[in-house]
Amino acid sequence: MTHPALALFRPGPRVVVGLMSGTSLDGVDAAVVRLDGSGAALSAEPLGFVSEPYDDALRAALAACVETETSDVRLVSQLHTRLGERFAAVARRALDAAGVDAPDLVGSHGQTVQHVPEPEDCAGVPTRSTLQIGSPAVIAARLGAPVVADFRAGDLTLGGQAAPLAPYLDGALFGSAAETRVLLNLGGIANLTVLPAGGRPSAAFDTGPANMVLDALALRLTGRPVDEGGALAAQGAPDEALLADLLAHPFFAAPPPKSTGREDFGAAFVERLVGRGGAPADLLATATALSARSVAAAVRRFVRPAPARVIASGGGVHNAALVAALAAALAPIPLETTAAHGLDPDAKEAVLFAVLAHEWAEGVRTGLPAVTGASRAAFQGSLTLP
Amino acid sequence: MTHPALALFRPGPRVVVGLMSGTSLDGVDAAVVRLDGSGAALSAEPLGFVSEPYDDALRAALAACVETETSDVRLVSQLHTRLGERFAAVARRALDAAGVDAPDLVGSHGQTVQHVPEPEDCAGVPTRSTLQIGSPAVIAARLGAPVVADFRAGDLTLGGQAAPLAPYLDGALFGSAAETRVLLNLGGIANLTVLPAGGRPSAAFDTGPANMVLDALALRLTGRPVDEGGALAAQGAPDEALLADLLAHPFFAAPPPKSTGREDFGAAFVERLVGRGGAPADLLATATALSARSVAAAVRRFVRPAPARVIASGGGVHNAALVAALAAALAPIPLETTAAHGLDPDAKEAVLFAVLAHEWAEGVRTGLPAVTGASRAAFQGSLTLP
Repeated sequence: MTHPALALFRPGPRVVVGLMSGTSLDGVDAAVVRLDGSGAALSAEPLGFVSEPYDDALRAALAACVETETSDVRLVSQLHTRLGERFAAVARRALDAAGVDAPDLVGSHGQTVQHVPEPEDCAGVPTRSTLQIGSPAVIAARLGAPVVADFRAGDLTLGGQAAPLAPYLDGALFGSAAETRVLLNLGGIANLTVLPAGGRPSAAFDTGPANMVLDALALRLTGRPVDEGGALAAQGAPDEALLADLLAHPFFAAPPPKSTGREDFGAAFVERLVGRGGAPADLLATATALSARSVAAAVRRFVRPAPARVIASGGGVHNAALVAALAAALAPIPLETTAAHGLDPDAKEAVLFAVLAHEWAEGVRTGLPAVTGASRAAFQGSLTLP
Repeated sequence: MTHPALALFRPGPRVVVGLMSGTSLDGVDAAVVRLDGSGAALSAEPLGFVSEPYDDALRAALAACVETETSDVRLVSQLHTRLGERFAAVARRALDAAGVDAPDLVGSHGQTVQHVPEPEDCAGVPTRSTLQIGSPAVIAARLGAPVVADFRAGDLTLGGQAAPLAPYLDGALFGSAAETRVLLNLGGIANLTVLPAGGRPSAAFDTGPANMVLDALALRLTGRPVDEGGALAAQGAPDEALLADLLAHPFFAAPPPKSTGREDFGAAFVERLVGRGGAPADLLATATALSARSVAAAVRRFVRPAPARVIASGGGVHNAALVAALAAALAPIPLETTAAHGLDPDAKEAVLFAVLAHEWAEGVRTGLPAVTGASRAAFQGSLTLP
């Protein structure tokens, strides 16, 4: 009998579905991509991308599941199945969009419901843990394809932070033999990957707030969840005195590795901003300038030698005001998006998990100790057969 | 580069560690076994077995984790790591006992914290789920060996009950080409597997209470958690009128498939027994006879043709009074234990997960639709590499 896993190890390109659901609990991203080669020789041809929001009931259940106070083991277990079904359904739509019947492989990040990389007490023993749900057995059965999932456990087990994972893709697809590059993701928080010449990620860290503050401010000031395209921000001008105050936040001067989130730039931060008064357009312009200048400052302070270019992805690339402010702040370093290198900036996170699954099948340890602090490179992911 | 998984698919025997923690939350069983061949041609040579109880703090945390009311997502996530470490530590001791440095493979059941095979509402959608914890990434890293885990998700996804799993081992190691056999497990509940000639399991079901009632009764009547070896029961005589009443419970006459547990034979059942009065030895003898006769009745009613032998395992085989009562009730069908066939009855459950992992590596679908009701045989387990 030929083992059903052996088909996975055949050389040559694979058509892989990458699946992702982020901490914002918005919905599921699915990217279909043809991948060939490995490491610095990896090539990726995007075939299709679908992003599908959760319905309100499922989003509410997920929101309850990620909080200690409102979660229980039954909800964790049930959502493990429910999300598996959702991930499989969105994958199927992405496959249809790509005109692909049967993928060779699926890589699924799942939904993080806990991520506690620093030790906390568990029955008397300091314990680190990370937990992603979305049953790979369900995805494998519904799509009839092997699934690699559970990408964070290996690095955590070896003492790493199990995050970020994106630098592997950044290095494989955007690394240059000749020049230093910075890959910049403009999500709720802005974070970047440093790729020295040779393309091996040397560091990755958060630079400060991006959409988290812009969106919260838009909602607070206009009642709409997003300042679409940065249109209102573009009509204002930054309050330079306020901006100088904001940039004095100690997070910006702290050396990497560092990470941030709602604890620094959540609701309280936005309320302080609003409390300073001013026209909505000016406040949004100020917050936009904060994101742009904190990114540029981080690049200047912490990336040596200076990068030849900054390549952006994430929802923030659709904010023209942010992109313009960022280009001005970075100049003369050119700002591009991943689209200029053939990859839809919205699809990048989902493509990451296709890449990590493909590399699992290639036998590559995708853990990056230099980025996560792990004792060695983890073999990231577990294989489930249909 | 040679893929690290390929070593797993080499023909020939494997030294495999099987790891199990049961619903009683007692502790971890680890069996080291040399396995060769596959299916009906599978051979197993036990090399070592260790059973290690949880400390009180960990047991209390687990007890909190399995109940909806006292659990939360943080506890589930933390115990996933904690149990991974415990499983790895007990596996290491079993390997030392067996004189094995590096196993070829590990099969880990983990700890079931939820098992809801019938649909229950989850955010408006009827949902079935099962969840086992005990991080395979931790076990793989600590032992430096590949781990197959998550054995129940595949069958559940295909509509099955994802239980019991033991019939696969029963068929592979105890099936006979010539005769019908019954494999009987005397755990908290007694359950049996029917192996027609040819050895392919045709059914598996619970027959009624075993140690669950005997232990609860011992604790209630003597203050000690077990009537060691059935010594007190052996001094009493069953109350035949009471026994007839107990055997009238509708569970016993119901046709398989069927399962039972604390809802039928828990604390309330024991209180009713005690309420009937009588000497402790006689009550224990009555409960012992209830287990023995309900097993024998199930064999006579539901196993066609009559089995050539009944082969027992589980903690109940150490209860001499139960074994004697069972032998008498089954006569002329002979009662044996798995020890007579070369397998320590205490180690059988842990060996099961070594066998299921080995068969994963052999490319065998170990799902048993005839037993679980799944639409087809699942490829059970997910592979994590060190």
